[in-house]
Amino acid sequence: MLPHGLSRRTNLKLVFTSHVSSRGFSLARSSDTPKERVVILGSGWAGYGFARTLDPAKYERVIISPRSYFVFTPLLASTSVGTLEFRTILEPVRRLQGKIGFYQGWADDIDFDRKIIRVEANAAEEAASKTVVPPPFPPPSETSGLEKMVEAPAKSAEKDMIDIRYDKLVIACGAYSQTFGIEGVREHAHFLRDIGDARRIRLRVLSLFEQCSYPRGADHLSDADKRQLLHFAIVGGGPTGIEFAAELHDLIRDDLAPLYPDLMPLVSITVYDVAPKVLPMFDQALAQYAMDHFARQNIRVKTQHHLQRLRLADGEFGRRHGALKIKIKECGDEEVGAGIVVWSTGIMANPLIAKLAAKELTSAGRNPPPNPSQPAPAALRLLRDSRTGGIVTDAYLRARLSGTTAEGGSGDRAASPGILEDVYVIGDCAVMENEPTLPKTAQVASQQATHLARRLNAGGAAGVAAKPFRFRNWGTLTYLGSWKAIHQSRADELRGWVAWVVWRGAYLTKSMSVRNKILVPIYWLVSWIFGRGISRF
Amino acid sequence: MLPHGLSRRTNLKLVFTSHVSSRGFSLARSSDTPKERVVILGSGWAGYGFARTLDPAKYERVIISPRSYFVFTPLLASTSVGTLEFRTILEPVRRLQGKIGFYQGWADDIDFDRKIIRVEANAAEEAASKTVVPPPFPPPSETSGLEKMVEAPAKSAEKDMIDIRYDKLVIACGAYSQTFGIEGVREHAHFLRDIGDARRIRLRVLSLFEQCSYPRGADHLSDADKRQLLHFAIVGGGPTGIEFAAELHDLIRDDLAPLYPDLMPLVSITVYDVAPKVLPMFDQALAQYAMDHFARQNIRVKTQHHLQRLRLADGEFGRRHGALKIKIKECGDEEVGAGIVVWSTGIMANPLIAKLAAKELTSAGRNPPPNPSQPAPAALRLLRDSRTGGIVTDAYLRARLSGTTAEGGSGDRAASPGILEDVYVIGDCAVMENEPTLPKTAQVASQQATHLARRLNAGGAAGVAAKPFRFRNWGTLTYLGSWKAIHQSRADELRGWVAWVVWRGAYLTKSMSVRNKILVPIYWLVSWIFGRGISRF
Repeated sequence: MLPHGLSRRTNLKLVFTSHVSSRGFSLARSSDTPKERVVILGSGWAGYGFARTLDPAKYERVIISPRSYFVFTPLLASTSVGTLEFRTILEPVRRLQGKIGFYQGWADDIDFDRKIIRVEANAAEEAASKTVVPPPFPPPSETSGLEKMVEAPAKSAEKDMIDIRYDKLVIACGAYSQTFGIEGVREHAHFLRDIGDARRIRLRVLSLFEQCSYPRGADHLSDADKRQLLHFAIVGGGPTGIEFAAELHDLIRDDLAPLYPDLMPLVSITVYDVAPKVLPMFDQALAQYAMDHFARQNIRVKTQHHLQRLRLADGEFGRRHGALKIKIKECGDEEVGAGIVVWSTGIMANPLIAKLAAKELTSAGRNPPPNPSQPAPAALRLLRDSRTGGIVTDAYLRARLSGTTAEGGSGDRAASPGILEDVYVIGDCAVMENEPTLPKTAQVASQQATHLARRLNAGGAAGVAAKPFRFRNWGTLTYLGSWKAIHQSRADELRGWVAWVVWRGAYLTKSMSVRNKILVPIYWLVSWIFGRGISRF
Repeated sequence: MLPHGLSRRTNLKLVFTSHVSSRGFSLARSSDTPKERVVILGSGWAGYGFARTLDPAKYERVIISPRSYFVFTPLLASTSVGTLEFRTILEPVRRLQGKIGFYQGWADDIDFDRKIIRVEANAAEEAASKTVVPPPFPPPSETSGLEKMVEAPAKSAEKDMIDIRYDKLVIACGAYSQTFGIEGVREHAHFLRDIGDARRIRLRVLSLFEQCSYPRGADHLSDADKRQLLHFAIVGGGPTGIEFAAELHDLIRDDLAPLYPDLMPLVSITVYDVAPKVLPMFDQALAQYAMDHFARQNIRVKTQHHLQRLRLADGEFGRRHGALKIKIKECGDEEVGAGIVVWSTGIMANPLIAKLAAKELTSAGRNPPPNPSQPAPAALRLLRDSRTGGIVTDAYLRARLSGTTAEGGSGDRAASPGILEDVYVIGDCAVMENEPTLPKTAQVASQQATHLARRLNAGGAAGVAAKPFRFRNWGTLTYLGSWKAIHQSRADELRGWVAWVVWRGAYLTKSMSVRNKILVPIYWLVSWIFGRGISRF
């Protein structure tokens, strides 16, 4: 890292007017780049982790992603409350070591036979950085209804499409947020999956305190109104929701209580979950520790509560102040008021996956190759997992094919004719047929990415086929606020202050650039001494 | 600073549910705050500087400003290119030492007789942080046309008005950007006066490179198109425009050239100015040094060029890529293409000033008080400077009154009956009658703020009247890029590397919190080693 940065500074001569020969990535493989081109869809834990590990001396790397950066998601909640600055958890894709190609946009379609990806280019300044949720769909009452859920998000009629050729393709485009078709969630809830989401949450939380701080005026908010606006609702009791609640609580206690002391009696935080227990990945003792800790901090946890509708409050209260009304099944007709609802539950398949899985593939890429003298074989498709909608892979992370008859039979895994060559799937959009229950976590995505890249470095397709992927569980950590966390793995379990040290330390050493390894602890120190950043802009 | 932050952390008990007695600022002076309430309009160099110096043990301080923070403007250009993180040049108003009241919003009107300010409250998350430019007005062909320029910016019909009482009032609401009525500037130019402006410029510059980096596609940009999009036009050759051009050049050379080498031959930067010479506050030798330095870096400086119109380019080039066309008087009918136009020339009076100056004041506050046995005196108004539209003050920064006849005579300064008691004006919206040519700079605003606060600390109105304000010129610094700057004062002049050290050092020691004094050098170091932040979000 360091030499790269330093050497860059030694050449201080500007080349504005000197002519540089064109070295762009062209569709045709040019003579000076005889390396195989590996195109990666996505820049998250899977895509970025893969590109980071793949050897640029052996492969030409090209990333296609709507985001020009990787987000270190475990610290996203910290940025949403101002403990860390947003940029300290981002790694720009173009700053990867070695030569890297990057095209900002969405993969719209893939021609597996000609090995060409159709990309909707979008580098406009207002694009990206925000969680995209597809428009409403009927509730998934039946699994076959999955197809109805995959309309692409509404976009401008003007699209700039470009074609990108690949030799090998790594599909790592992740999953979308799942709203379960609940009315109003897509429009009014805040998500917490990208840096733009964190920025909007931060603005909203701080703005709510500011809005409630005015003295009596023409449009005076009553204490009851303020109590609603200062109710922070989190839906989903997984690690993301719990950590956000904890960080939000720290922000309010440490930074906002001294500035808005009068408002403190009106503040409340609630975590809602449909399950009987939050943090399902922790054992009962650790989850109870977390709940006891939350109870001491007056963070309410309401399990077995079902959100049924989210809407803006009536009149100016909703229109100007953005006050929300939550309808909860267990609370009857009485709606709960809130100033913000943070949605941290559920993911669904990326619409691209359904589109790809619906395509009939010709013979190209089929293994073994078809015999022209025989009758036309059954149409081939990517094999899709009916439960999650992801693409099924074999133990080597290669995309599996589903053989269907021309009349449209069902995709029986056992009858599958094999794999689609040169196409690999990792991360949230992959379902391994030998381990179909691997969780959709950063840990799994990261390990798959590293494994696949190392195998390709070791010997291309043969290298991949030489060693199956095996997941190693490093355990799970969740921050609980007040410098406490819980950690669980097969080997040990930690709680309290020790877990906090492990948590912060572990995050620092993994996946971060030197730049951010320097900046993150500095911000932790500065925020601890001087308080979090509370300016809104 | 440190003790404040540290002590804050010692009280870790949360008070969510405990009842705190109401301590809000009420309209009526409550018994437990017998201090005089000083209300400050604005949170810039004048307003924030004043509040920072005024003793909270002697006065109750209340700031009213559309921005919840102070911006350290000399480093704004650095944040717009990613050398510094935005938040490192912000100081939250609510974090001022000692008790401070803050209401986010615009002062809409002031009742000087009843000493009440009518405030349009606005703490919505999307508000503020962006330069507001009033809607078009006819060109100021005649000074009496000033009144036509002061329509308030268009706002929602829904306004939340609150009344704030004051004992003493400090008007420090600054000036607006002046577009001279040139078509399209208000809609299409970027300003660089607030942190939101810097953020938008940063997004736009980086997005332009990304947009030009795609391979040939359906909507392929030709090299001529890219040459237009990668033309960065700066209008105004004052320190702000010159420094932005220099910082932009550093960004492109240091950070973007390695990532987009093919685009470098297409990049150009131009500074336009109507005057025959840029940097008018520097003597000829230093200005020439700056021009020679720019010439070596291929930054074009076009003096005596008059921008006549700014518009979006036709078709998708303008609509999708935001390409601009600049019509320049000296270039005839041929328009110049640009990807961004940064407007850094001209300020105009805040519309509030004209509104206040148009008000007839009753006898209250008049000095000497009127004699009821005499005929009704002529109507009183705030005295307004006809050239700049600012409020005239005496040598003590007190607002001057203009006596006009009931039939509407002219405001002759010599005939003015005196001052409006308890109303002070500092910064860009003040014009001192004894020194009417003081420049509208941070230096003047900052010195006026400190002077006034210290005099009030020393003895209230009598303290103010005891010592007139005197401006001390600390000289002017302008950064030229490549770690070079020029500095000029009466005593000395500096150029080159030495000036750069002085420049960076001087900025650090003034007006910044400890937090930012720590963070700014860290960012300078980190950006120097690892490059600037180039992620867009």
